[in-house]
Amino acid sequence: MTETVISSASKEVVIGFDRPFTVIGERINPSGRKLLAEEMKAGDYSRVAADALAQVAAGAHMLDVNAGIPLADEPRILAEVIQLVQGLTDVPLAIDSSIVAALEAGLSVYQGKALVNSVTGEEERLETVLPLVKKHGAAVVAISNDETGISEDPDVRFAIAKKIVERAEDHGIPRGDVVVDPLVMPVGAIGQAGRQAMAILRRLREELGVNTTCGASNFSFGLPNRHGLNWSFLAMAIGSGLTSAITNPLHAEEMSAVMGANVVMGHDANCAEWIGKFRDSGGGATGATSGRRGGRKGRRAPAQ
Amino acid sequence: MTETVISSASKEVVIGFDRPFTVIGERINPSGRKLLAEEMKAGDYSRVAADALAQVAAGAHMLDVNAGIPLADEPRILAEVIQLVQGLTDVPLAIDSSIVAALEAGLSVYQGKALVNSVTGEEERLETVLPLVKKHGAAVVAISNDETGISEDPDVRFAIAKKIVERAEDHGIPRGDVVVDPLVMPVGAIGQAGRQAMAILRRLREELGVNTTCGASNFSFGLPNRHGLNWSFLAMAIGSGLTSAITNPLHAEEMSAVMGANVVMGHDANCAEWIGKFRDSGGGATGATSGRRGGRKGRRAPAQ
Repeated sequence: MTETVISSASKEVVIGFDRPFTVIGERINPSGRKLLAEEMKAGDYSRVAADALAQVAAGAHMLDVNAGIPLADEPRILAEVIQLVQGLTDVPLAIDSSIVAALEAGLSVYQGKALVNSVTGEEERLETVLPLVKKHGAAVVAISNDETGISEDPDVRFAIAKKIVERAEDHGIPRGDVVVDPLVMPVGAIGQAGRQAMAILRRLREELGVNTTCGASNFSFGLPNRHGLNWSFLAMAIGSGLTSAITNPLHAEEMSAVMGANVVMGHDANCAEWIGKFRDSGGGATGATSGRRGGRKGRRAPAQ
Repeated sequence: MTETVISSASKEVVIGFDRPFTVIGERINPSGRKLLAEEMKAGDYSRVAADALAQVAAGAHMLDVNAGIPLADEPRILAEVIQLVQGLTDVPLAIDSSIVAALEAGLSVYQGKALVNSVTGEEERLETVLPLVKKHGAAVVAISNDETGISEDPDVRFAIAKKIVERAEDHGIPRGDVVVDPLVMPVGAIGQAGRQAMAILRRLREELGVNTTCGASNFSFGLPNRHGLNWSFLAMAIGSGLTSAITNPLHAEEMSAVMGANVVMGHDANCAEWIGKFRDSGGGATGATSGRRGGRKGRRAPAQ
């Protein structure tokens, strides 16, 4: 019964097999958002603040915070943004950077137990990030690539995840505090990406007993109707053991996928969340009830 | 590698683990459709014809045909409807009745290898329906209830399915020609209905090696936004081994769930079906592409 507890100063989130799925909002990230990057670089965090509040209002349980801007002072900006966001919301944060000094700056100002995003299987990363995670009593996202890059072979990705989990334990970090990202590939490029993801998620749960996360939207990269495809992918991934995802909670499809999967997994007691969200939605594509309310039940009566 | 071949005079459909999911259109069924029932009873099959064509146009691979109308001559009507539908479309049919004489009348006029819907685990049903299935070289849906009703215990439902499969073999019907319906319960009434369905679907696949079907919309009975919930349920059920469903192909959500699940399962080569369906759908909820096309890829570059 693996549980990963992440916290802010006043609120805990538990990622776990027998818990509702954890949505980590991805929006506070200047990658591919030129305007946001320019603003953040200039010290204008108004859009960051708006993104934080909007994501929490949309149902995000945690927020990922990334300040990766070329030629900017990432450690300073990341620390400032973390302080700002923690002043605005009470959800726990994932501190997201590939620069160790930025992770350190973020951790040093963070109130609570953060999720460090991320460490890879690269030796140099393992030996710099894991001590930092241990020092701050944080949890960490383990991304299953290493010096050789991202393997297309899911067995290799699983082996790297296993290595990171074991190395974390060597550093005194319990495996409950390692959340593995098995690296979901774009199915438009690798036709077996979906089957691979389902298989590796199942192994991570059954063999390694770890919580998992992913950048769910990678799966649909380059294809039309990405949100529709993300819906099926996310629901199926949750069925295979995925316990959290870094995604955009402002997208109705992804959130419906998660809420529906919670119902299917038995993690929405009395369907209260589902009913609360949709009870007043009336007709139309997202709120219609089926014309045949009993499904096939009617005709299943015994023969007369 | 279980495969269930169903055919019309000119077309085969193969239900199988390594095949795209099979959608069996549920619309030709007077249960709960008062107008349709009255028309069918009066010999007016115009709505049946329209429903047949619309479902095939919407992507149904097979059609379920039911003529269960109180106080009507069900065997005659069912046979007439089957002949009508087979004259209009080339998709194979499921002949759906709880009255053995109606199944017999339907089978006697059917062109091809039909799917008989259904037999239960009740002794009297087993010993009347299975000989009929064998005589006509048909396949059969096995519904996992018996004289004691529908058990809430999924182990009991699995055991009944096993009994039906074994009895069918006693009658010379190979297990490849038995498609098990594990009876999906409404989650609004039974909170563990989703977990139960996933577990029994996995067992039916791994332990019994049979194809499966279900009335997918039963799951969401009584809840708001049924189509949204059906989406997550169907996708997750396909991930757990479901290979066909009796559902309404006119609902965009259910069909998107199936098409997305085919992509995830690697059953849509080069995503050709998905792209063909959605490539021109442009913006908006069903056709939008994500603002961050690369997902989290960008920030995963090694530290500079």
